[in-house]
Amino acid sequence: MAVVASPEQVKTTADNSILDRLHALVADDLKRVNAVIVEHMQSPVSLIPQLAGHIVASGGKRLRPMLTLIASRLCGYEGSRHVRLAACVEFIHTATLLHDDVVDESGLRRGVATANALWGNEASVLVGDFLFSRAFQLMVADGSLKVLEILSSASAVIAEGEVMQLVTANDLATTEDDYLAVISAKTAALFAAACRIGAVVAEKDAETEDALERYGLNLGIAFQLIDDALDYAAQQATLGKSVGDDFREGKVTLPALLAFQRGDEDTQAFWRRTLEDGEQVQADLPRAISLMERCGAIADTIDRARLYGQKAIEALGPLPDGIEKRALIDAVTVSIDRVS
Amino acid sequence: MAVVASPEQVKTTADNSILDRLHALVADDLKRVNAVIVEHMQSPVSLIPQLAGHIVASGGKRLRPMLTLIASRLCGYEGSRHVRLAACVEFIHTATLLHDDVVDESGLRRGVATANALWGNEASVLVGDFLFSRAFQLMVADGSLKVLEILSSASAVIAEGEVMQLVTANDLATTEDDYLAVISAKTAALFAAACRIGAVVAEKDAETEDALERYGLNLGIAFQLIDDALDYAAQQATLGKSVGDDFREGKVTLPALLAFQRGDEDTQAFWRRTLEDGEQVQADLPRAISLMERCGAIADTIDRARLYGQKAIEALGPLPDGIEKRALIDAVTVSIDRVS
Repeated sequence: MAVVASPEQVKTTADNSILDRLHALVADDLKRVNAVIVEHMQSPVSLIPQLAGHIVASGGKRLRPMLTLIASRLCGYEGSRHVRLAACVEFIHTATLLHDDVVDESGLRRGVATANALWGNEASVLVGDFLFSRAFQLMVADGSLKVLEILSSASAVIAEGEVMQLVTANDLATTEDDYLAVISAKTAALFAAACRIGAVVAEKDAETEDALERYGLNLGIAFQLIDDALDYAAQQATLGKSVGDDFREGKVTLPALLAFQRGDEDTQAFWRRTLEDGEQVQADLPRAISLMERCGAIADTIDRARLYGQKAIEALGPLPDGIEKRALIDAVTVSIDRVS
Repeated sequence: MAVVASPEQVKTTADNSILDRLHALVADDLKRVNAVIVEHMQSPVSLIPQLAGHIVASGGKRLRPMLTLIASRLCGYEGSRHVRLAACVEFIHTATLLHDDVVDESGLRRGVATANALWGNEASVLVGDFLFSRAFQLMVADGSLKVLEILSSASAVIAEGEVMQLVTANDLATTEDDYLAVISAKTAALFAAACRIGAVVAEKDAETEDALERYGLNLGIAFQLIDDALDYAAQQATLGKSVGDDFREGKVTLPALLAFQRGDEDTQAFWRRTLEDGEQVQADLPRAISLMERCGAIADTIDRARLYGQKAIEALGPLPDGIEKRALIDAVTVSIDRVS
């Protein structure tokens, strides 16, 4: 019997093959990054490696450390410092995830129970702090004040972005600019830093550092736009993410913002009740999704993501062509084509 | 009419005068530390300075940054780097307080509503992260990898200590050694680091660094032992702290541990019910305090604190006599004589 793949299956396979190609390019380095991660999350306090191991192993694509690895190779770096620094980037990411889940009170991440659901908020906060400290210890051992400057600044910006997000939650007066400021800080700042330190370890000039940072920043914005679209679009089963998390938490993301702004009086009242007042019934999520689809809010969010993806690719202009540059372009494709 | 001071009042006045003397010694530097703190907790996201300002202003004695200031002076340092580093120490302390209050679900700290009670857990976690990042940015601006190493290691140890405390909560099989490991990590590690960096900025030898670290470590242990005794002894009105917080949270601190170990079958059942099973009624806290007083658990905890205070003073042996050394000895007195 002939098996006919559905369009979604074909799409997924294509994306996976790009992701596989990306992974293959830095496979050995990525193995070493994982070894550094496992080694440095150890502690005589066994709950720490237990909880950290849960989140480290729970299916992340290691996109951020991969960016550090590929960026440094693209800059012609041939040493091994990039491995340790890629691990720092992943530790910072993991620490923010742990604190994020406390903040969001999420029960699922990528279809796996979150650490705070399993071990409680307290442990998630503290193990996040531990991993964050470990990241700085690793940077100190590396010895570059420039890298320390980039990643400590990024960490402060991430925290600012998360607080901004908290402040704009439940507030439909949030503008698209406010929203962009939030995602630039909470998500894109680490993508940007991950790429920039690739140029730093290779001791490239400021122009190269800036180009890679701009690439990372725009990629990060595109990535978060897609994430926010997926929250109203994807099936939990295929994505391993609870659809409607942002809706339930009253987060004012771009799809919601567009649907609100484009809505008539009734529609605006719906968004006010569900997002601002937090009064939701079961039928509200399907209605929210249908309202968004009708006014093109999800499609336009994805279009915006494509635009930032394009900006990311353009930022690579001054950098030499080759397999690594191709990989960074692929990373844009992988980040955006998770939907559609 | 003659006003006769009660013994408590006399005691408090005497302690305050020592504390005043300590403050006076570094008054100018401490003002500059406060200015650095206020300057660096600023952010365009107004909730950050608002929340950070609340905790920074809520009556802390600035004991830890004072230790950095005095230690560096004792080492003959005449520059101004110690001011910025003292601010880093206070930022790390403030960040851990913010995360601690989330973990403890405290409503009051020093008689003032905690940040998480006012702004919620989410904001406390994130502003803690922000201040922690700011501390590292300040260290990076200072430029000493040695200081960065000391404070990033201390931060990791603090987080380990807090997780250990979480693991030993509700567990009366905790040993006195376990308890000491917890307080050495969660509290004393930052005292030790605050003192050690005083020697580092002054570019003193390893022996001086070690002596100051040992002083700080023992002082920190003494300080926490007294804190834990006060939780069962002080009046909320005079201390500005909720008595019985540790009891309600099922924390196994030394007074509780001693009272449990020294109790008969009935008494042990009481501690199991209240601390391990978390089943408490109103009359339990007075009974807990009375059980502790009867078996000498509080007095013995204070005695242990005196012992560590003595060790702290002994550690200062190799350091030159003078007004700064006298001040560090005073800091031991102030830390211990909060009770009795």
